[in-house]
Amino acid sequence: MSQIFSVIMAGGVGTRFWPRSRERSPKQFLEILGGGTMIENTLSRLRPLVDEKHAFVVTNRVQAEMVRRLVPWLQPENVLAEPLGRNTAACIGLAAHWIHRVDPDGLMLVSPADHIVQNNDEFLRILRLALRVAGEKDALVTIGIKPTHPETGYGYIQSAEEEIDRNEYRPEGVFRVKTFAEKPNLETAEKFLQSGDFLWNSGIFVWKAKVILREIELHLPDLHQQLDDIRKSIGSPTYEQTLEHAYRIIRSISIDYGIMEKAGNVYVVKGDFGWSDVGSWDEVVRLSPKDGDGNSVKGRAILFDSKNNFVDSGGKIVATIGVDDLIVIASDDAVLVCRKGKSQDVKEVVDFIRRKQMNDYL
Amino acid sequence: MSQIFSVIMAGGVGTRFWPRSRERSPKQFLEILGGGTMIENTLSRLRPLVDEKHAFVVTNRVQAEMVRRLVPWLQPENVLAEPLGRNTAACIGLAAHWIHRVDPDGLMLVSPADHIVQNNDEFLRILRLALRVAGEKDALVTIGIKPTHPETGYGYIQSAEEEIDRNEYRPEGVFRVKTFAEKPNLETAEKFLQSGDFLWNSGIFVWKAKVILREIELHLPDLHQQLDDIRKSIGSPTYEQTLEHAYRIIRSISIDYGIMEKAGNVYVVKGDFGWSDVGSWDEVVRLSPKDGDGNSVKGRAILFDSKNNFVDSGGKIVATIGVDDLIVIASDDAVLVCRKGKSQDVKEVVDFIRRKQMNDYL
Repeated sequence: MSQIFSVIMAGGVGTRFWPRSRERSPKQFLEILGGGTMIENTLSRLRPLVDEKHAFVVTNRVQAEMVRRLVPWLQPENVLAEPLGRNTAACIGLAAHWIHRVDPDGLMLVSPADHIVQNNDEFLRILRLALRVAGEKDALVTIGIKPTHPETGYGYIQSAEEEIDRNEYRPEGVFRVKTFAEKPNLETAEKFLQSGDFLWNSGIFVWKAKVILREIELHLPDLHQQLDDIRKSIGSPTYEQTLEHAYRIIRSISIDYGIMEKAGNVYVVKGDFGWSDVGSWDEVVRLSPKDGDGNSVKGRAILFDSKNNFVDSGGKIVATIGVDDLIVIASDDAVLVCRKGKSQDVKEVVDFIRRKQMNDYL
Repeated sequence: MSQIFSVIMAGGVGTRFWPRSRERSPKQFLEILGGGTMIENTLSRLRPLVDEKHAFVVTNRVQAEMVRRLVPWLQPENVLAEPLGRNTAACIGLAAHWIHRVDPDGLMLVSPADHIVQNNDEFLRILRLALRVAGEKDALVTIGIKPTHPETGYGYIQSAEEEIDRNEYRPEGVFRVKTFAEKPNLETAEKFLQSGDFLWNSGIFVWKAKVILREIELHLPDLHQQLDDIRKSIGSPTYEQTLEHAYRIIRSISIDYGIMEKAGNVYVVKGDFGWSDVGSWDEVVRLSPKDGDGNSVKGRAILFDSKNNFVDSGGKIVATIGVDDLIVIASDDAVLVCRKGKSQDVKEVVDFIRRKQMNDYL
């Protein structure tokens, strides 16, 4: 019987939530929506499925210490610190080796650290289904989210039509994957939504460690080689040095592009559990409760003659007068005032700060 | 020959510039427009006319120490600290006694601490004219500002038509005052503007100390009595105690209402020297230079896809995205986001803070 492991990917720097998220306090460490940090919530969500000794986090060196402090029940050695960010293929491959070492038949639940789920029971039901498919079929299983609107900020997964493999045994809601699609433009996103067979790519994956390692060997032989060097050094005094050396030459490539789009045995489980990647302030606004004037306030605010605003006052007090449809975020050293619907341009602001080398504000 | 004294009234708490002005850092101590604090600038402006030993400031006890630190060239004893704010009649009467003690024939230039003047040469010319009228005629002289728009935030002075006293000797630009008018509504303000004989009441006055004291005796006999008690104690160890006792019973009344509207020998000198009482953030916006997009920035700001905004970042960085016509003021513990044209409602915010007893933010 395979044991179940979780792998939480938590290396992001979170420029999209400037000025709340910063290089040293990325999104997964924040209570963007209140009620605990996103990484704590992500780990907690999986606890009914995953023994605490089997919970892994992959992050960078700076954040590794933050994770260990923030989530004291994690095994310290299960917080894996990458010396450099090399995208998801390397991150997942590294974790797969650690897991394979504990249980050669172990199943991995891979999830980003900074998503939210509103219906946790349904989420767990879907994961159990995915674990079953991954376990029984030695398959690569992704979780696809039933889209609710023509979102241009997500990648999409096209499920194969029922007819193609109707003779195959599959539980309800499980499909073969026909193709992965990059983030579409609005027109394409609308077509995707209408088609009914395109799902949002949640970035949540389920598979056996040995299966994904086999696929890496097949499709990303260089990465396989570099990970194999690392594998041999796990538990030895040369581990850190080997890791550093390997990561310096590992190519940055996503698991979607490097493996999922090429592998054969790929399934998608269709889920509908109030998922969001909380990718922008506008998404936070969408997810936040509103008062009678359409305002959402986190912290302390005085909204005078103001409607449909979102305010996160960050320990200060924010007053608005005569303004509508604004997102106002205050932090210790910075303030953002953004028209609703424009929060994707937060990255332009962060890019500007970076270009001007105003590094204190990053 | 009368000596010339200045009396700067600096007791205000400046709620209109929240969150920059606070109970402990009112407007006159701020560089609202850059280039020095308003009180320093007010004192500096008068130095061509007033010997530094003759410069007085009347303020409250907390601010008295701030004034002495901020303007070290002031004679410390010339910074008069009122134990309580009792409006301008008491403030001016107190200063008049101090001045009368130094020079029984002394002339007083009375000015609020928190106004600006853009054309200083013209300002000094007008004051010299006012000093001449006050000196020669033992008159109460006010400075009236030629209005440029139908402002509802100022009181007005109606000058008597030329014909009424055409046989009287008066230099050009000097008029008898017909009446003082309270802050008008917009309709009335427009009529005032069209009439040509209504001027903005600048709150700047010129007279001999002995003349204003005589008028106080005539029109405000209670205040006269209380000021006389204070006068007798000046220079004695009982001064502070007498002051405290007298101020506790002094009625709050303005010099305009208590004296100017009742006195007979009142003149107005018509001035046009780029005056503003800088009474609101909107007025600061009006007075501030704009860039090509109509934005004004004090401090550090990144304005992305944003036009006609005013930002005062207060040592932080402020970023705006996709917003127009906003006033954004950041301070250490508070942020204001106000639609242009609405800054009179800042006092509503401050009132709310006071009602809720969130005193840290006052």
